[in-house]
Amino acid sequence: MVRRSGRRPGNQDTKQSILEAARTAFAEIGYDKASIRAIAAAAQVDPALVHHYFGTKEKLFLASMNSPIDPAVLIPQAMAGPREEAGERLVALVLRVWDSPAGGAAVALLRSAVSNEWTARLMREFLVTQVLRRAITVLDIDEKEAPTRAALVATQIGGLALVRYVLKVEPVASAPAEQLVAALAPTVQRYLTGDLPGVFET
Amino acid sequence: MVRRSGRRPGNQDTKQSILEAARTAFAEIGYDKASIRAIAAAAQVDPALVHHYFGTKEKLFLASMNSPIDPAVLIPQAMAGPREEAGERLVALVLRVWDSPAGGAAVALLRSAVSNEWTARLMREFLVTQVLRRAITVLDIDEKEAPTRAALVATQIGGLALVRYVLKVEPVASAPAEQLVAALAPTVQRYLTGDLPGVFET
Repeated sequence: MVRRSGRRPGNQDTKQSILEAARTAFAEIGYDKASIRAIAAAAQVDPALVHHYFGTKEKLFLASMNSPIDPAVLIPQAMAGPREEAGERLVALVLRVWDSPAGGAAVALLRSAVSNEWTARLMREFLVTQVLRRAITVLDIDEKEAPTRAALVATQIGGLALVRYVLKVEPVASAPAEQLVAALAPTVQRYLTGDLPGVFET
Repeated sequence: MVRRSGRRPGNQDTKQSILEAARTAFAEIGYDKASIRAIAAAAQVDPALVHHYFGTKEKLFLASMNSPIDPAVLIPQAMAGPREEAGERLVALVLRVWDSPAGGAAVALLRSAVSNEWTARLMREFLVTQVLRRAITVLDIDEKEAPTRAALVATQIGGLALVRYVLKVEPVASAPAEQLVAALAPTVQRYLTGDLPGVFET
């Protein structure tokens, strides 16, 4: 990260410095340990300015990742409703986001995470702190089992994104969303709430 | 591709020219349509030399992709045995290959396929012509359903590779193989041979 001194030429420049400092902090020490105060210090600005531009630490994190979605809004939406249909709603949500104009940014993020260890770290932090913790709270999943269940869900959802949007393997690449929901929902449901013999002692 | 004329300085150079021509042909027109004769012509060598260096078209394809494995050997191994345990054997095989020293090359290939449309095409050709056709023949899957079943298997297997080896999301990144087999085998089995209501008319 390039540090600058002296008067800032404009808001865009300041914002960019804050975003760079935030990306570094989140990737290096993780979302929980990174503080707005430390990020502000690294960007050589007042913490109040970070709050002014980006609001909460969570919103700063989403901005620093160029996230096309806000999980704070989407996850509770997807998870609300019968527990035994959470898998269906989650797969449908993923397809809705990735099939939308925001999908291009999501593909770019996945490509970047695959080619760059640093973005991969940000994406792990994103998955764990923004997506999974929320889903787990809403679904009331056993805390000890939650990380495993969440990572298993990530294998199916990540693989769907990889095959449909990046590798574009047919017929999954152009299948109607409802067919993919029908195929994948039972998998995601099992990972979220099902018995997993051989994984957890039962 | 750079075409050269005149005497070839050595075998390595000739081999590289053939591999470049093969990559171009497989990515541009696909495995089935690419002929050894056309690849030899593009590399300005005699077709007999291609056979001499690489054997069959299939072996040339694997060499052009730097594939760390030979599906012609591995897939029949994995698929032999009770049909209702094919999912288990396939997940176990994938983990065995990727957890082995060959896994590094497999990760490199996946990274490359994600960042490069050209390698993505090669990987699609590889999945379809080398892996899936074989698996489908051994398992005696309905030809009309096979492409969909194969692509669904790819979502789960590709996602496992992505999460375990590239994004390294814990606890999947360091879970013992047998736990992942226990978790994922029922999914792969359902995609291979299960009823898929909402996907196929039943």
